[in-house]
Amino acid sequence: MAKDDKQIIRESVERWLAASKSHDLSTMLDLLADDVIFIVPGKEPFGKEVFAAANQEQMQSMEMDASIDIKEIEVAGEWAWMRSFLEITFTRDGKAAKHSGHILTIWQKNPDGHWVIKRDANFVKPEG
Amino acid sequence: MAKDDKQIIRESVERWLAASKSHDLSTMLDLLADDVIFIVPGKEPFGKEVFAAANQEQMQSMEMDASIDIKEIEVAGEWAWMRSFLEITFTRDGKAAKHSGHILTIWQKNPDGHWVIKRDANFVKPEG
Repeated sequence: MAKDDKQIIRESVERWLAASKSHDLSTMLDLLADDVIFIVPGKEPFGKEVFAAANQEQMQSMEMDASIDIKEIEVAGEWAWMRSFLEITFTRDGKAAKHSGHILTIWQKNPDGHWVIKRDANFVKPEG
Repeated sequence: MAKDDKQIIRESVERWLAASKSHDLSTMLDLLADDVIFIVPGKEPFGKEVFAAANQEQMQSMEMDASIDIKEIEVAGEWAWMRSFLEITFTRDGKAAKHSGHILTIWQKNPDGHWVIKRDANFVKPEG
């Protein structure tokens, strides 16, 4: 069972990245718990509404490509944690900006079997 | 059972802080998994040896006081995750420096029932 859940989480990560690239905010929000909390450097932790607003604004103005290296996933019942390294390239007006960083993510399994992001400690920032 | 484990984790946090203040590196290392990984801003993730070396150096040269606000703990089997906010004051030569930040911690339960820190996404940095 744990192995299946790991696979489902990996597929959820792929769905998340595909949705990011195709500006599909609705799919991204489906992969977030309603009470998700993002923890990032330099600002107060924020939730789903702030994420949605920031993402919508960002998406309208730039293209995005991303790749993720999933370092490890551990599943225990309805909880899982994942450590990863994310690289993102934002392109606006032909200019590319690379961001990257480590992420520690807590996933929660919904009663319907879907996994959603519950907490995300996200060190992704501009490179260099 | 989950409630007992939460209490044990809270007590482990208290032991950690007390050990930090009293320069008791041995107790701190006992609360870390051998393969612990600290994820912090601005440097590569590091493990137990690097933590021990950095801490020993730091401890020799300054006093430390700390308080933690544990925001939430969730336990599932041998795993737990904890979100907290840590405030530390380092004092050296009468000068105090305040550090603070959010932390997302993964705990693992050892076969002997002790909980140790497995992963620590740590945003603690100088204030201001």
